[in-house]
Amino acid sequence: MQNRKNINSAEILAIGTEMLLGDLVDTNTAWLSRKLAALGTGIYRHTTVGDNRERIVAALQEAASRADLVITTGGLGPTSDDLTNECLALATGRKMVEYPEAREHVDEMFRRFGRKPTPSNYKQALFPEGTQLIPNPLGTAMGALLESGDTLFATLPGVPPEMMGMFEETVEPLIRSRSEGAIVSKTLWFAGMGESALAERVQDFLDATDPTVAPLAGQGKVRLRITTRAATPEEAEEKIKPVAEEILSRLGDYYFGEDEETLESAVGRLLKERGATLALAESCTGGLLAKRLTDVAGSSAYFKEGLITYSNESKERLLKVPHEMLVEHGAVSEPVAEAMAEGARKVAETDYGLSVTGIAGPDGGTEEKPVGLVWIGISDSEETFAKKLNLSAWSRSREAIRERSANAAFDLLRQHLVEVRSGAR
Amino acid sequence: MQNRKNINSAEILAIGTEMLLGDLVDTNTAWLSRKLAALGTGIYRHTTVGDNRERIVAALQEAASRADLVITTGGLGPTSDDLTNECLALATGRKMVEYPEAREHVDEMFRRFGRKPTPSNYKQALFPEGTQLIPNPLGTAMGALLESGDTLFATLPGVPPEMMGMFEETVEPLIRSRSEGAIVSKTLWFAGMGESALAERVQDFLDATDPTVAPLAGQGKVRLRITTRAATPEEAEEKIKPVAEEILSRLGDYYFGEDEETLESAVGRLLKERGATLALAESCTGGLLAKRLTDVAGSSAYFKEGLITYSNESKERLLKVPHEMLVEHGAVSEPVAEAMAEGARKVAETDYGLSVTGIAGPDGGTEEKPVGLVWIGISDSEETFAKKLNLSAWSRSREAIRERSANAAFDLLRQHLVEVRSGAR
Repeated sequence: MQNRKNINSAEILAIGTEMLLGDLVDTNTAWLSRKLAALGTGIYRHTTVGDNRERIVAALQEAASRADLVITTGGLGPTSDDLTNECLALATGRKMVEYPEAREHVDEMFRRFGRKPTPSNYKQALFPEGTQLIPNPLGTAMGALLESGDTLFATLPGVPPEMMGMFEETVEPLIRSRSEGAIVSKTLWFAGMGESALAERVQDFLDATDPTVAPLAGQGKVRLRITTRAATPEEAEEKIKPVAEEILSRLGDYYFGEDEETLESAVGRLLKERGATLALAESCTGGLLAKRLTDVAGSSAYFKEGLITYSNESKERLLKVPHEMLVEHGAVSEPVAEAMAEGARKVAETDYGLSVTGIAGPDGGTEEKPVGLVWIGISDSEETFAKKLNLSAWSRSREAIRERSANAAFDLLRQHLVEVRSGAR
Repeated sequence: MQNRKNINSAEILAIGTEMLLGDLVDTNTAWLSRKLAALGTGIYRHTTVGDNRERIVAALQEAASRADLVITTGGLGPTSDDLTNECLALATGRKMVEYPEAREHVDEMFRRFGRKPTPSNYKQALFPEGTQLIPNPLGTAMGALLESGDTLFATLPGVPPEMMGMFEETVEPLIRSRSEGAIVSKTLWFAGMGESALAERVQDFLDATDPTVAPLAGQGKVRLRITTRAATPEEAEEKIKPVAEEILSRLGDYYFGEDEETLESAVGRLLKERGATLALAESCTGGLLAKRLTDVAGSSAYFKEGLITYSNESKERLLKVPHEMLVEHGAVSEPVAEAMAEGARKVAETDYGLSVTGIAGPDGGTEEKPVGLVWIGISDSEETFAKKLNLSAWSRSREAIRERSANAAFDLLRQHLVEVRSGAR
């Protein structure tokens, strides 16, 4: 592919009737958009069409009339419903031709799976004439890179890991080589502070135009994305560095990581650094904290066990929460949150114990203890304490209360681990 | 709104720069699509544009040229970025006028939140002339229903609970009143059988045109959606009934519920019916089963506790798995899966114990025990047994292996609870 026109704008076209029917939520488009935004490519439009020849051709041509780059996902399979490359040929006035390299790839992948291709599988070797193939080490469907008029088309499969790998290996470097200068983004993650309070402290940066700083908030976390363009990546990094440092000097207490970091991966990293172990005691979150901690590969290095004590009897037996305490204060209370965290730590013989007990709803709330009341407990060898959350303002869903509770719990432990607020407690 | 043209086709336009940048995955469009598909409305295209006047107007006009109904989500807020209704006025050549009813609604919502509106909040009282308002009991943003040319436009907010309520209360009845006859869908859910094997047994129905039967598979579950149209809902139900019955007579062993049922809610329902209780012992799924069980409101009636034993020491101490067994067979083995299920049941004094132990990867696999090897154990007062899964074909991600393991575990317990296969074991 010659180094032709610069790529300044892009559109994404998702192809598949299952998305039009709502049977599949398209996550590919958001992933590609984040990647393109980080590359500094303007994104004007996302479109989804079904497995319909006329509609795919029309959507390809419309997108090409607006954007330098059109990326499609889906419709690269071997069945009669898979029309993307054929439609790309129609939209650009090319013939479909067989690429021997693609045919060999189909054979090779089938050999690897220990199966034999049928004639229909070789459909995946047909591409518009003039295509540069996009390798796919994970599946049979190679993609097409095709220059037509002022537009570069890239067809990618709908299977997320295949699509992601092919974008990162082939399409992303191409966009970089055809973008003016380098765009660099750094994302800083914060928790424990609301979006507006956080924005107030860095308003001067939010108002600035280079680097730009864009906030986004959700479920108790706030993200600031710093972006700039420069002749080289190094120069861009140099422009971002002082901005990031100044933001961290103002908000460092609330900072938990950059780029792909999550609260659970930040907690994991801190535990690992300290060679420390953790046990969980969950009531209303019912395993959500454990699930998220163990989403992180390698978490067995610091996560030892989780006790999901959904009944009072379980809290007494497994966590040694005194019966009288449960009767006197109820399961959703400060002493019980503390006793759960301490119990988890002691029975598992870990360095830290983290507990959550609350009312996730929709039922079970009372005037005194409404839906959204949550206590988080933390225990280590030196101290045990609890923090109260009132999530009733977000009480529209059980799911939201549980997610926010988990975020708050991880953040409280994170703060405790870095000891940034030891004086404030 | 007069009963004008029939609504046979629809497009959905999502508005918001945060989606174009990939900062927000749009779930509204898929939800609306499922609703529209169930109403029998053909959906041709989904489009997403940013908060940009020209691009929103163009997208509205293009969608109107193709569809009887154009539904927008997002862009109804009070800030300068919220342009949807203004763009609808531009696209249809109307003036923006203030609706006193909408102004009162803003005042009323602010009173309820105990706050005072600022002048910018009254922007939410401006709509294109000729609009019928869509009430929003949950927020300040009312929507617009506007007939222009051959197209009906409906503007809905981006906040999912508000959007859903407004669609169900106002837009859905309108579509029904302007659709020919009634469309009725019934979804049947199956597990424990692959899509192609299942499709083979009902191929005659998949080939039929009325009712249509459409399969969709994912993560070890298969769904069949039966859809038909008739003069009345009752007539449509009558057409669906014999098809559903015949399908169930062929595939009943694999059936776990209809419509919104999930494997975890099916298990919960069966436990509740039997007045039985459950304890979980999880290793590789790390809390995912517990999290999913407790996603279901009211699960405390049957779910007593979950033990996430991520270390061997935890398996020994909490579940009484013999040390020698762990040494001899390893944590991922048939006897350990059985001992975990039995241990969970006995220590929690529940009727059933369910366990999962496996290798979710990406690390930790060996030649003998590769990533994707998973054992599921079930124990009740009569018997304890385990089932082996080999998920290596889906081993592309830790997440997929964990989800499939959870589905398989819930399905095994479900089968055990209905005892459909007691003879086959």
